[in-house]
Order: sequence, then structure tokens, then C-alpha cells
Amino acid sequence: MTIGFESWARDGAARRGRLTLAHGTVETPAFMPVGTAATVKAMRPEAVAETGAEIVLGNTYHLMLRPTAERIAALGGLHRFMNWSKPILTDSGGFQVMSLAGRRELDADGVTFQSHIDGSKHRLTPERSIEIQHLLGADITMAFDECTPHPATHEAAADSMRLSMRWAERSKTAFVERDGHGLFGIVQGSVYDDFRRESAELLTSIGFDGYAIGGLAVGEGQEEMFRVLDVTVPHLPDDRPRYLMGVGKPADLVGAVLRGIDMFDCVLPSRSGRTAQAQSRRGAINLRNARHAADPRPLDPDCACPACTGYSRAYLHHLTKAGEILGPMLLTWHNLHYYQELMAGLRSAIEAGRLADFAAGFHAQQAAGDLPPL
Amino acid sequence: MTIGFESWARDGAARRGRLTLAHGTVETPAFMPVGTAATVKAMRPEAVAETGAEIVLGNTYHLMLRPTAERIAALGGLHRFMNWSKPILTDSGGFQVMSLAGRRELDADGVTFQSHIDGSKHRLTPERSIEIQHLLGADITMAFDECTPHPATHEAAADSMRLSMRWAERSKTAFVERDGHGLFGIVQGSVYDDFRRESAELLTSIGFDGYAIGGLAVGEGQEEMFRVLDVTVPHLPDDRPRYLMGVGKPADLVGAVLRGIDMFDCVLPSRSGRTAQAQSRRGAINLRNARHAADPRPLDPDCACPACTGYSRAYLHHLTKAGEILGPMLLTWHNLHYYQELMAGLRSAIEAGRLADFAAGFHAQQAAGDLPPL
Repeated sequence: MTIGFESWARDGAARRGRLTLAHGTVETPAFMPVGTAATVKAMRPEAVAETGAEIVLGNTYHLMLRPTAERIAALGGLHRFMNWSKPILTDSGGFQVMSLAGRRELDADGVTFQSHIDGSKHRLTPERSIEIQHLLGADITMAFDECTPHPATHEAAADSMRLSMRWAERSKTAFVERDGHGLFGIVQGSVYDDFRRESAELLTSIGFDGYAIGGLAVGEGQEEMFRVLDVTVPHLPDDRPRYLMGVGKPADLVGAVLRGIDMFDCVLPSRSGRTAQAQSRRGAINLRNARHAADPRPLDPDCACPACTGYSRAYLHHLTKAGEILGPMLLTWHNLHYYQELMAGLRSAIEAGRLADFAAGFHAQQAAGDLPPL
Repeated sequence: MTIGFESWARDGAARRGRLTLAHGTVETPAFMPVGTAATVKAMRPEAVAETGAEIVLGNTYHLMLRPTAERIAALGGLHRFMNWSKPILTDSGGFQVMSLAGRRELDADGVTFQSHIDGSKHRLTPERSIEIQHLLGADITMAFDECTPHPATHEAAADSMRLSMRWAERSKTAFVERDGHGLFGIVQGSVYDDFRRESAELLTSIGFDGYAIGGLAVGEGQEEMFRVLDVTVPHLPDDRPRYLMGVGKPADLVGAVLRGIDMFDCVLPSRSGRTAQAQSRRGAINLRNARHAADPRPLDPDCACPACTGYSRAYLHHLTKAGEILGPMLLTWHNLHYYQELMAGLRSAIEAGRLADFAAGFHAQQAAGDLPPL
């Protein structure tokens, strides 16, 4: 295998592990902040690292359009470009391209699409996606797939999944093996158990360094998502990392770790940080709400992030109302800090064999909600 | 005197000094970053301090409207509110209120105006401005004045200046003396030598902890501004700090220090950092320009700020094109770092008695312009 994955503790389906990649190690279960356009929005990379993040995500789609993969390669690769020396996982562009409703045309070989920036025409195939991710210098490359829309009929889900499986095989062929660099396949199959199993088995027979579960968190709801995890995970190799793509809310992470997922990415903590929404052990807190306007307490008195140790809720509310850039900066930091702290808690709980207790405590605190008004 | 100002080296009219204020000392000549709404835009206060800034500016006008001075006082004052433990100077609100063309009415007692936020009616008088600055907890309070518009007839300039002088006297009466807290008067008089002298002499006879020169950098041009400094500074007490308000470009700072100015504030480094413009020893550099798109060199190879040590021009250009928040964050940091470095250079040059050489070197480097294309 070209990347390392060891796991030394289990608690039910959950695993405590470590990825070894070209640019460093990643403790799992891990949350990967999203750095779409070669930046985790509103965060200096030093701050991203301070939150505890050991790997970030980059986006093939965005970077191929601007500034282009060739330019990033000429400048020394994505790590150097964005000043992030730890591991990077790049997505394949498949998800973004499929989201370009009315601006993309799918064929058996790949996808032709129009840039959301300037309308210019571009093409992605499995081979080109893998090449771009190589140019970027990703530690983990994702196979090029079609993210099956939701809802999908049984027939549409089958066609879409089988196309993705052919593309997965082509991705594998195109991938240049290098020490510390890995390629992940992506399980599709919508909400259909038989297709999820078929997809997992096909990918396993091709052989990947890790296995992602795609096409979830697209509107099916948490219960259905967990059900799909329950039927999919048992068909994935036990000795390879499992990555649930684009997920999720804190409760999604907890539930998915319980079901054997090792890796996550989601824009939620960074995006909601830019809209005055804090994620916390006491649930989501909207700092724009007038009830915070005169509140001298920190956002979370038990949080050690700069937003919570340096400022009152009244100040964060003020920044939000005044449209100050420092608002998104501090709230994004808090949210990413909270996500990393949650993952660290899950990792410790697995090691201690107390994951069920941890999950119960998590849910109780979320249900209790925010601090009472002063 | 309620604040300390010592000066131990001179070079021509320039002085090397130190302010001692309630929240710390400030080496002079000093540049004060502007923190209008209780934040230096796009900067955490830790970063502001890392640039070398020892004092920041707060704005009476903005803070009285949102979140209100009373709220900030209830939350422990402006220092605590914005998590800045070093000195703060607050302006009086005079300049901002006068800028509200069509939305303010001046009378002999004060100004009634409409908020730019919600149109609500408010009033500022010398007494209320001083009270607000007291509530904020400013180390340095500015007298409430009318910033004379430019151009102004001889008669209008006289009326305006004399109104400001009556308000200066009322400001002094209203100011509550506290150890480490000072009140500055503001010289007005437009471009008329006789009025500048009259204003300086009136303020000196009232007696302030420091003397600001207002009503400049409002369109009169650098040459005229320097001329006004030349005729005004000799009429200010030698043993008190002199503050040139709202100035300026790097060359303005150098020229004004040569003419005996000790303190500056200006939105230019922070504002231009939000519009992709870098201030540097090689002049202003527009990172949006396509010539930087593939340039692997730092913005300034001789600069030690995070933007210059961590990133290429190509990356800064990319952030700018992509509208990423990290762009303003890094460029604001660079610009404030450069301003502080320039001030440190001026301070060393005064101590070494080599200010003329320093200024000549500064102008030569600015004239040489940006790095040649690769």
C-alpha cells in the first residue's frame, strides 16, 4: 500500500487509527476542514493547524479553473501555494461538476461543463481529474465519480453507480503510485442496499488505499444516511480507512464514527462561521440574535479557542451586526476548534472503550441547549 | 500633566520620544492603526500587536451608534470589549459627523445628526463627546471640533476655527483628569497661516496634554499640507506630543516626522489592504494586476510579515481574484507591518542623527518602484 493506516483500538464498529501520508500523520477518526480555493476561508493556515486539524481538503473543480492546476504545479504544488505543510486530500471535481445543473453534459467518457466564473468550457474525465490531483500534489487523491442525485430511481441509481465504478477503474489505472500518496474509491448507489453493496464490492476488487462513501448528506436525512452506513460499511475492507464525504453536523459525525467511519469533511463549520452561526457543545448558536447584545459571557465558557477566551458574546454580536471581517475570522476559528475537539473526544472515547457513554453525554449536552439568559 | 511625554533625541525638527499612558508606553514617532468599530478590520488584536503597533484608534461616532458607549462601559470598557490591552486614542466624532453632508445640523452648542446605520437622530456636543470617550476608557481623548471643509474662504475658515476653539475650551472643562489619561486639543484654521497660528496659541493658552493638527489631508495636497505644518508646529509647545490626524501615505509620514510630528493615524494601510493594494518600501503594489499571476516571489522579499514570508505574489493575486477573506487578512497585516517598520526606521534615524539620509533612502527606493518582472 502506498499510504499507511494502522488501527489499534475498537469500540463496536468504531476504530481509533492513524493515517501515514507523505506530508505527515493524521489521527483518526479525523475531521478535514475544507479549503476549496486553496484557503480554509477566513483562516490563516497557522490557525487551522492550531485548531488541531492535521489534514485539509482542496477542490479539483475550483483550482482547475482558477488559478489552474498547471500554475499551482509550476509554483511548487498546492502545499507550498497555500502554505500548508501537512497532508491534503483533494476531491475529484465530480461532485461540483454534477452540481452545475444545465451547464454540464455527461457522456460515458467524462463531463463537459461551463465554468461558474466566466462561462468558459472545460472537460473532466477520470484521467484528467487524476492528473490534476497529481499536479496539485495531493496526499490523498479521490477517484472521479458521478455523485448520484437524490432522489434517484432504482434504475437511475444503478446506471449512475455503474458509471462511477467504470470511472473508478479508470481512475485507478491513471493514478501514479508514489510513496505516501494514496487513491480512494467512492461508493455510490443512492439509498439502495443492493447497489451500495455492489459498489463496495466492486471497489474492493479493484483495490484502493481507502474507501469513501459518497452521495449522502444530499437530502436523504440523518436516519437514512445512518441506515446506508450500516449496510455499506460491512462490505468495506477492515484494514483501510473509510471516509464519509461532505458530512456533517456534529451529531452526524458522532453517529457515523459509531458506524465505523474514520474521516469526514464538511463546509458547515467554516460556512456557518461566516453567517454568525457558532457550532458548540450546546448546539448551534446564532450570534446575530439580539439576546447576545449585552451578554458579557464567552460564547462557550468551556472552550479554549481565541473567540471564547478573548471576547464576550456581546462583542461577537457587535462584529456580526457591524459586518466586520473579524466576526467570520473568530467564529470560523471557534467552529473548527469545536469540531477538532469533538473528534479528539471521540478518539479518546474509542481508546477507552467508552464511546457509547461519550455519545450519550454529547447528545444530552446538545439537547440541553445554550446557556440560560443572564 | 496626566500623561507622560519624554523626548531624548532630536534631528532637526524631528523628535524621538515616548508617551506614557494608562495602558502602556508608546514609542514616538508612532503610527496608530484605525480600529473604527472596535476592531482593526481583518486583524486579530494579537496580530495588530505583532506588527509593532502600541496604540490603536477608536471612533466615538461609530461606537456611540453601535453598540453605544454605555454598553461598552457596562462590558468593562473598550480595551476589554475589543481585547486590546495597550493604549487607545479615541477621536471625538467631530470629523465623522461633519462628513454627514445633508444629514447634520450645526449650532453653536453642538451638532444634531442622523445615524448612517438607521437614520435615527443623535446629538454630539463637546461635553457629550468627552463623556463618551470617558465611557470608552480612552487613554487619549480628543477635543470635539469642527473639521473645516476644504476649500474654505478666509471668513468661513475663521468662523469654523473659532467655533472649534470654543468647543476645545468646553472639552477641557468637561474632561475628567485621571492618571495616565490625556486630552488633546486640535489645531484648525484651514490653509491660512494666521488662523493656524491663532488656533495653536489659543489651544496652548487653554493647555492640553498634546496637540493635534486637524483639517489636513482633505484635498489640499502634500505640498500645502507640509507648508501648513511648517507654519503651525513652531507655535505648539515643544514638550508635548504633536499628532497629525488622518495622515497618511508613507511619504506623508516621512515628511511630517521631518517637520516635528510625533503621532499619526490613517485608514490607508488597512483600507488599501482590503482592496488588494499593498504599501511597501517599493511603493504601492496592486496585487490584482495580472503581472503577479504566476510570480513565485514574495510581495516584498525584505519584509518579515506573514504575507511576505509565507506566500507568493501569485497566491496573493489568486486570493484577490477569488475574493477570499484571507486576501484582506494578509495584505492588511503586511501594510500595517510596513507602516510600523517605517516608523521604527524613522525612530532609529532620529536617534542616530541620520534622518535626512533615511528620508533620502526612502524616497530613492520608492522612486525605484516595484521589482522588475521576472
